[in-house]
Amino acid sequence: MARESKGMTIMRRIDELAFHTETPGMLTRTYLTDAHQHAAALLADWMRAASMSVRRDAAGNVIGRYEGCTPDAPALLTGSHFDTVRNAGKYDGNLGIVLPIACIAEWNEQGRRFPFAIEVIGFAEEEGVRFKATLLGSRAIAGTFDPAVLDKCDEQGQTMQDVMAAAGFDFRQLGAAAFKGENVLAFIEVHIEQGPVLLNENRPVGIVTAISGASRFLVTVHGLAGHAGTVPMALRRDAAMAAAEIGLYIEKRCSGTSELVGTVGLLEVPNGAANTVPGKAIFTIDIRAESDDVRRAAVADVLDAMQKIAQRRNVTLDINQTHEAKSVRCAPWLQEQLADAIAGCGLPVRYLPSGAGHDAMAIATLTDIAMLFVRCGNNGISHHPDETITAEDAETAATVLSRFIENFAPRR
Amino acid sequence: MARESKGMTIMRRIDELAFHTETPGMLTRTYLTDAHQHAAALLADWMRAASMSVRRDAAGNVIGRYEGCTPDAPALLTGSHFDTVRNAGKYDGNLGIVLPIACIAEWNEQGRRFPFAIEVIGFAEEEGVRFKATLLGSRAIAGTFDPAVLDKCDEQGQTMQDVMAAAGFDFRQLGAAAFKGENVLAFIEVHIEQGPVLLNENRPVGIVTAISGASRFLVTVHGLAGHAGTVPMALRRDAAMAAAEIGLYIEKRCSGTSELVGTVGLLEVPNGAANTVPGKAIFTIDIRAESDDVRRAAVADVLDAMQKIAQRRNVTLDINQTHEAKSVRCAPWLQEQLADAIAGCGLPVRYLPSGAGHDAMAIATLTDIAMLFVRCGNNGISHHPDETITAEDAETAATVLSRFIENFAPRR
Repeated sequence: MARESKGMTIMRRIDELAFHTETPGMLTRTYLTDAHQHAAALLADWMRAASMSVRRDAAGNVIGRYEGCTPDAPALLTGSHFDTVRNAGKYDGNLGIVLPIACIAEWNEQGRRFPFAIEVIGFAEEEGVRFKATLLGSRAIAGTFDPAVLDKCDEQGQTMQDVMAAAGFDFRQLGAAAFKGENVLAFIEVHIEQGPVLLNENRPVGIVTAISGASRFLVTVHGLAGHAGTVPMALRRDAAMAAAEIGLYIEKRCSGTSELVGTVGLLEVPNGAANTVPGKAIFTIDIRAESDDVRRAAVADVLDAMQKIAQRRNVTLDINQTHEAKSVRCAPWLQEQLADAIAGCGLPVRYLPSGAGHDAMAIATLTDIAMLFVRCGNNGISHHPDETITAEDAETAATVLSRFIENFAPRR
Repeated sequence: MARESKGMTIMRRIDELAFHTETPGMLTRTYLTDAHQHAAALLADWMRAASMSVRRDAAGNVIGRYEGCTPDAPALLTGSHFDTVRNAGKYDGNLGIVLPIACIAEWNEQGRRFPFAIEVIGFAEEEGVRFKATLLGSRAIAGTFDPAVLDKCDEQGQTMQDVMAAAGFDFRQLGAAAFKGENVLAFIEVHIEQGPVLLNENRPVGIVTAISGASRFLVTVHGLAGHAGTVPMALRRDAAMAAAEIGLYIEKRCSGTSELVGTVGLLEVPNGAANTVPGKAIFTIDIRAESDDVRRAAVADVLDAMQKIAQRRNVTLDINQTHEAKSVRCAPWLQEQLADAIAGCGLPVRYLPSGAGHDAMAIATLTDIAMLFVRCGNNGISHHPDETITAEDAETAATVLSRFIENFAPRR
């Protein structure tokens, strides 16, 4: 029997993992549910099959170690998360665990070891669905886990620490889950792009330059409700049209700069009715960019334009900032080695920022990070059952990661 | 004791009527509820006190007749509705019944009669709240009552005909409620403006030129949902921004023409979230104008612009027309006599269209109509407890109506 290609193994195992869901018929696998624990056990099996030693830390992370030529060598880290959003796609996160396991399995068959160890981490929690707190797994490993979140409750009213205890994890050991910087060489995360850029440019993989910083606002517009038939246009204080004008300003301001995006994702006219001039509108603003300066300049312009629009339209605004995160840069020396690996596979090198957050963000406080994006199908749709990649791209990405690791030169 | 002014009587009786509500603490008086029947009885009392003969027709309308110099003379009709919306203002409709009763009471005290009878009609239903069918009272009198609505149910599941029977009204007599054209000279309705035009121009009353025609649409925009961080601006198919651009086009297209208004009253992004590019948006369009040509031209431009915007943004539109009504013109000969009455009171003459529908719309198929608008306070707010007028304006409007009727010359 011919050996299964790495691409095929990866696709098959991704399908296998997707059987473990809280909700039959759709993939939902949140932190420390039965489905989540089953997925963890499956990942551990595959790690062991590749001769990795497997441990689980107090956060529930699954960590497989493939020793180097000498024991206790410092480790190159890789991995991603195995929790999911509700009604998720199956590649988000999971690909970044299953893929390096397949690479290691091949080296293991070849009896090949490196001057460094490789640790593959299945991060137990990234999405923040169950406890409204994100990056739990990677923060535990980076030593930045916030103990305050242990008191957060899920929808059933169970605290995170009770849920952890019931699953056999002792939150008092969370500190010991933190890696020591001196044992770590770097972190590289393989992840689906979750967007259409590589698809549209016909590139199987891309090098992430940075995880974009983000600013978010929740805005309420207060205008004056009125009868749609009896209030002349010139006398209106239409809250919805003020929101519309602001939205289009954001869209225009954030267009034309390739690394900048701005979105009005939530837009509501409470109690809206066909025959009423809206007196109130609520919307969100989400602005992201690779460069914090570019983002801050856009935010400043948007806030300024909002005030001018509000003044001209005689409406008032309540503006609440709900989120602010700086950009996290991928290390140039790792990007270079990744570019060499991609070029060495005969592929074009495409750099792009990641607009979405990833475990690598949290790991960046522990060690230098890199990310390899893999092309999505279906217009780049993600967090949705239609999320997809091809087996060919999985194979290509695995080949690129293998080449990167085989040629990996730790920073001096 | 000094005689109470007509303005004071009107304000006091409006307050009196407002006690009759289905909901303590707020005014809601829908068709044939106990509150509605009590209000009808009160109106009948006030009519009788002014020496009017009172009858109720099969639709529940309260009709008071003040005979002319000779019995059975053809009648000048006036009146408005005494049902209300939920959490209503107390002047909408009610003013147009209470006000002419006060005028007639004065003539009755003076022993004054005219060569024509005057009939004051309290229309039992205009707003359409209970059975989702509007203008029931005026349509019965115009002979255009649609028998199909008798089978409509209220929220308790009672059919209109059962509710009518329980209140002592026989739907089989609805045909007999229709007035004969030869017995009628004209109809004039006094009504609050329900808008801010007279208030902003400091005019106590205005002459309605026409009840605007209206076109309404419900539009669904289908774009493509995506991650707010990962889909570059140029690759987006944002349904909300398409709706925003269409909304602003409507606003701009309908501005600058004094008789034209265009409104996006409902605007929704289903399941909108800060970090998601909206894949779907739903909104309404309401376009009204005094001139049907002006309205149709605006609607055509809006539909055209929508297609262009949709094409450019690569989104698709489902456009459903939900309403289409032609403009109803107020008779020029009645407008002239109303202008004479206003000028005769030393007041400036202001013409304006009515963007809202009124009982006069239905009566227009029976006889020529006129409408006198009375200035609202509070920015012209209506259908709301803050709806208000001043006693002084009530007095002024009563004086104008009295002068109009005293000098009324039937069309030859």
